[in-house]
Amino acid sequence: MELAPLVAVVMGSDSDLKTLQPGIKILKEFGIEVETRILSAHRTPLEMIDFAKKAELNGFHVVIAGAGGAAHLPGMIASITSIPVIGVPIQSQALSGVDSMHSILQMPPGIPVATVAIGGGLNAGLLAAKILSLSNKSIKNKLSQYSQSLHNQVRNKDTKLNQIGSDSYLKEMNIK
Amino acid sequence: MELAPLVAVVMGSDSDLKTLQPGIKILKEFGIEVETRILSAHRTPLEMIDFAKKAELNGFHVVIAGAGGAAHLPGMIASITSIPVIGVPIQSQALSGVDSMHSILQMPPGIPVATVAIGGGLNAGLLAAKILSLSNKSIKNKLSQYSQSLHNQVRNKDTKLNQIGSDSYLKEMNIK
Amino acid sequence: MELAPLVAVVMGSDSDLKTLQPGIKILKEFGIEVETRILSAHRTPLEMIDFAKKAELNGFHVVIAGAGGAAHLPGMIASITSIPVIGVPIQSQALSGVDSMHSILQMPPGIPVATVAIGGGLNAGLLAAKILSLSNKSIKNKLSQYSQSLHNQVRNKDTKLNQIGSDSYLKEMNIK
Amino acid sequence: MELAPLVAVVMGSDSDLKTLQPGIKILKEFGIEVETRILSAHRTPLEMIDFAKKAELNGFHVVIAGAGGAAHLPGMIASITSIPVIGVPIQSQALSGVDSMHSILQMPPGIPVATVAIGGGLNAGLLAAKILSLSNKSIKNKLSQYSQSLHNQVRNKDTKLNQIGSDSYLKEMNIK
Amino acid sequence: MELAPLVAVVMGSDSDLKTLQPGIKILKEFGIEVETRILSAHRTPLEMIDFAKKAELNGFHVVIAGAGGAAHLPGMIASITSIPVIGVPIQSQALSGVDSMHSILQMPPGIPVATVAIGGGLNAGLLAAKILSLSNKSIKNKLSQYSQSLHNQVRNKDTKLNQIGSDSYLKEMNIK
Amino acid sequence: MELAPLVAVVMGSDSDLKTLQPGIKILKEFGIEVETRILSAHRTPLEMIDFAKKAELNGFHVVIAGAGGAAHLPGMIASITSIPVIGVPIQSQALSGVDSMHSILQMPPGIPVATVAIGGGLNAGLLAAKILSLSNKSIKNKLSQYSQSLHNQVRNKDTKLNQIGSDSYLKEMNIK
Amino acid sequence: MELAPLVAVVMGSDSDLKTLQPGIKILKEFGIEVETRILSAHRTPLEMIDFAKKAELNGFHVVIAGAGGAAHLPGMIASITSIPVIGVPIQSQALSGVDSMHSILQMPPGIPVATVAIGGGLNAGLLAAKILSLSNKSIKNKLSQYSQSLHNQVRNKDTKLNQIGSDSYLKEMNIK
Amino acid sequence: MELAPLVAVVMGSDSDLKTLQPGIKILKEFGIEVETRILSAHRTPLEMIDFAKKAELNGFHVVIAGAGGAAHLPGMIASITSIPVIGVPIQSQALSGVDSMHSILQMPPGIPVATVAIGGGLNAGLLAAKILSLSNKSIKNKLSQYSQSLHNQVRNKDTKLNQIGSDSYLKEMNIK
Repeated sequence: MELAPLVAVVMGSDSDLKTLQPGIKILKEFGIEVETRILSAHRTPLEMIDFAKKAELNGFHVVIAGAGGAAHLPGMIASITSIPVIGVPIQSQALSGVDSMHSILQMPPGIPVATVAIGGGLNAGLLAAKILSLSNKSIKNKLSQYSQSLHNQVRNKDTKLNQIGSDSYLKEMNIK
Repeated sequence: MELAPLVAVVMGSDSDLKTLQPGIKILKEFGIEVETRILSAHRTPLEMIDFAKKAELNGFHVVIAGAGGAAHLPGMIASITSIPVIGVPIQSQALSGVDSMHSILQMPPGIPVATVAIGGGLNAGLLAAKILSLSNKSIKNKLSQYSQSLHNQVRNKDTKLNQIGSDSYLKEMNIK
Repeated sequence: MELAPLVAVVMGSDSDLKTLQPGIKILKEFGIEVETRILSAHRTPLEMIDFAKKAELNGFHVVIAGAGGAAHLPGMIASITSIPVIGVPIQSQALSGVDSMHSILQMPPGIPVATVAIGGGLNAGLLAAKILSLSNKSIKNKLSQYSQSLHNQVRNKDTKLNQIGSDSYLKEMNIK
Repeated sequence: MELAPLVAVVMGSDSDLKTLQPGIKILKEFGIEVETRILSAHRTPLEMIDFAKKAELNGFHVVIAGAGGAAHLPGMIASITSIPVIGVPIQSQALSGVDSMHSILQMPPGIPVATVAIGGGLNAGLLAAKILSLSNKSIKNKLSQYSQSLHNQVRNKDTKLNQIGSDSYLKEMNIK
Repeated sequence: MELAPLVAVVMGSDSDLKTLQPGIKILKEFGIEVETRILSAHRTPLEMIDFAKKAELNGFHVVIAGAGGAAHLPGMIASITSIPVIGVPIQSQALSGVDSMHSILQMPPGIPVATVAIGGGLNAGLLAAKILSLSNKSIKNKLSQYSQSLHNQVRNKDTKLNQIGSDSYLKEMNIK
Repeated sequence: MELAPLVAVVMGSDSDLKTLQPGIKILKEFGIEVETRILSAHRTPLEMIDFAKKAELNGFHVVIAGAGGAAHLPGMIASITSIPVIGVPIQSQALSGVDSMHSILQMPPGIPVATVAIGGGLNAGLLAAKILSLSNKSIKNKLSQYSQSLHNQVRNKDTKLNQIGSDSYLKEMNIK
Repeated sequence: MELAPLVAVVMGSDSDLKTLQPGIKILKEFGIEVETRILSAHRTPLEMIDFAKKAELNGFHVVIAGAGGAAHLPGMIASITSIPVIGVPIQSQALSGVDSMHSILQMPPGIPVATVAIGGGLNAGLLAAKILSLSNKSIKNKLSQYSQSLHNQVRNKDTKLNQIGSDSYLKEMNIK
Repeated sequence: MELAPLVAVVMGSDSDLKTLQPGIKILKEFGIEVETRILSAHRTPLEMIDFAKKAELNGFHVVIAGAGGAAHLPGMIASITSIPVIGVPIQSQALSGVDSMHSILQMPPGIPVATVAIGGGLNAGLLAAKILSLSNKSIKNKLSQYSQSLHNQVRNKDTKLNQIGSDSYLKEMNIK
């Protein structure tokens, strides 16, 4: 029997939800159960720690954590739980996410956070799916179909560009 | 029966080996079979692609890829294989790894690379182990012991600092 | 007889087309045949490699490749084909093209990419024309006329500024 | 009666001690009791939280926290305790402390960390003393004497430079 | 009897007021008397120095100073007064506050400025309150209530997100 | 008799005029004759060089040169003429003027360019006036009046803020 | 008959020679005649311009120009000559070549410089060879052999790593 | 009769002297009287202000001010004196002078500082000489001779490189 995959998507603020939503959506499309939580490393630190302590026991296999600025949420959860933590640097106002990126990526030796691009909510979901797919054929198939659809989209656009030329293509893009 | 975990550690140049070695070592200590490869996205692109195409069939569950500068290796492997790819930005000469970090981390939607800190070879190994531990109790135990040993080291240093004070502590550090 | 010049303009996504269009247009104005392709290093890696392998055989003399973020397209094509590759870093959302610039420019010793400014689609086209003009007098003449027209535009603006003064000049600019 | 001032100087790793020592030393010179702790946000998170929870009860008035890289220690302590937390970004290897600076400084609204310069261990100590001096005349006097001595050092150097000239001054500096 | 807390909020330009206002407001809500001043280190340097010289005598316990660009105001006040100075880097036009951050944070050994995040007006107010709370129970209580309210806000949002799910939550956010 | 002051304000493109206009205006207000030129280091290099060669003979005492991106104009003029050159980095699209700043400021030993802030057209005019004022009392008086007016503006705003308070002040700002 | 290829390698200072030498060497190995010049955009501007004006007449097909800091040399030559110019940003002291990179890469629309990596002297040579190879079979063959040798070096190192393992490989590297 | 030129070279710390010495030396070689002062904006603020207030009365025509980190010295002097101020950003430890550059260059509208490159002590001296040369023929002649000598040095190196070739030239450089 395959493992029952379960992903927790946590965020420091509800303003991060918009960035993480594409990842939540893709996981659900892949049939993966997702739990979403607003847990601030700074405003609800003890709840955050409690969540991290129980994450494995509660059946989670992967945690996706998004945060901006001095983004401590992913690293703190990773310091407590033993399951893989994926960090999503949220684009911040003054520094455009460079601060979030440094705070999430530059973890010290011993406590890794699997960091994705600034604003990379979708990729966080896909990375979680890739990890879960190692022991779940259904997810592997979904991922394969997803890759194929990305591939086909590019192929179709390429075909269209060759057919109508760059001038017409641009005009159509501007209309949309 | 548990899955036979297997990690490929690939690098763009043998000068990257020093950075990746702590990750290779920890994986071996955890009893995880590791294959090391020098595969340059730029100098041996077809071999690199061939490796990526067959990675899953060859039994790998996770790829760790380290590269510096315009570090294309992790992203290109991730674009071909369906298994998780962990990227290690190698500290570069002029830009100190900022270029490597951008090239590995800022992947487009659809193709995630699980990026660790600049020079984060050890964390790449630990992240691979965390992923494999989802379906392997032995690795989970090893990780737990490893965390505990990190924890104990800090506790011991903390105790010592309180006992001898910062002046003496610094003197001892300088002697070592 | 002169060489039949031919330039391929490839991009990772159709959203890059707007940036590359001025280069496509200038090449066509110079009478140089252009082929435009959407080829994603990450979403259609095998098609991209296939394109690069056959680029020379297919008669291309120069490839212009635009990409944003972890912009692997120019470097990967350059690693496979022997013809010159011009890279155009596309302005990205969070990092404004600094990531694209690093990923394209910081290629390792052995595999050069001729990089132009962030968003420099026009200059990519002109650089391709300059390269082709080495063995094509017609293109050389077109380039010379183009330079002269740039030169004249500045001269005319300079004359006008002196005639009407900065106050009036600014007012006219705001009206347009 | 004045308050009994007490400062906790905590660090994520004993390698941070060298940076913090000037602050520890100046506090002791001012007659302020200091407790030094090695508490890693990532390796001993629960001890760190326990420390923060009890900091006020244990009689601390100010916490100085130094950390490097994804430096979560100052912000996490500040999220739990109500006493002022001073953060010291430690100069890191690849990013020279820019990562530490972002992780400590860019705290979200609601949870301030009083951040000093990268490597600013001495200033952290002085800032703690300034805060304590608000209700302690002895510390205020010590600070005043310290400022005066800094002032005098510069004055003396200025006098000397005027007396011997820049050539001789530089030669003496090189000898030392 | 407790100390009569008093905070001066100074700014280099009235365009900084918008950033500092949340800090002014929270201080007033906590019952702390605030004086606001526009004092430019560059346009009214002597008034600025005069203010700094008399700050302590005039009964201020903490100065909050906001400035943008070559933001000299916080550091210059800190060089003259002995009371703690909190610096607020204002987001600037071309460099988005990175210049302000460097100018305020990177003070030399001997003269600390307690720096908060770029645009961190609210946190400057809270940090001032934290400092004043060391000798004022009423402020300590207000801070505690404030923390609790932040905590509750996050808890309520977390509860709501779990109840209605991320799709509905996002829709509601967009409506507001 | 005093020197007849004359300033040349040159720019690489007429899109730079908006940034330089405040400097042109202030110079004219000070009674300083200004000549404005559009001279591109890249599109009209020979005219630019010709201008620089004759600048002194033509009676100019100071050149203000504004340019953006790979902003070569100020440095190239400074390499040819012996009169002082003031450089104005124009805010650029992708890099917000960081490229302009580096290209203008980082001149090699031997050929200085007096660089002002990104977008600092007004300060360029004032710096030119300061230089000319060394041998012109009228300009010195104008500068003194200008400083006084800046000073008074801040004083008046400070007075007003104290009178009406920050709430009302902000409301008035928003109305304007 | 094939074109007689000829490359000029110019530099702003003889301190840049070390960076450019690998490119000079590879061009000579490919049988391409190279002329090396020290021509400072700032110290010998008129000679630099004279060189650029006559470059094509003197039979050059490509110019490689290396410069550091406010690196104007490549862009200024490109603004005058019609042949392709390859720019090499030299690693600078304070900014590690970021200033050189911006000054060379960020050329305005109309005047492209084919920029290679910071310190990329070898790649500049190879890019020049690639351009010349478009009309020269001998160079094309040399490039092909060179690529093959790079490829073989990586293959051999990969084989060796697999044979002796990472521990032994690292030991051997340290001995060398 | 010409004006008696006089330059003040002030620095925030005697560690800045090494950077400023080339400027002091060149001014003396040009026969310009120089006064050197150590005046810290932060440690001796009142002396610094006193110096600035009297600078013009004391006969100075130009002030060169060097400072590192949160380098307030040049801007503060410029805010008080009406004579031109040249700022020299000193290379700092953690941020390599980027902080110094921002603090000196990014002055607000109304108070210009003529900024030179990071570490640009020599260029500060030359810029001062250029300014003074506007009303002093002797200095103008000295500057002209200096430019000529720079020019000749490059010409001689260029000649030598052509004579002995890059291999021999590099060998000679390494011996020296």
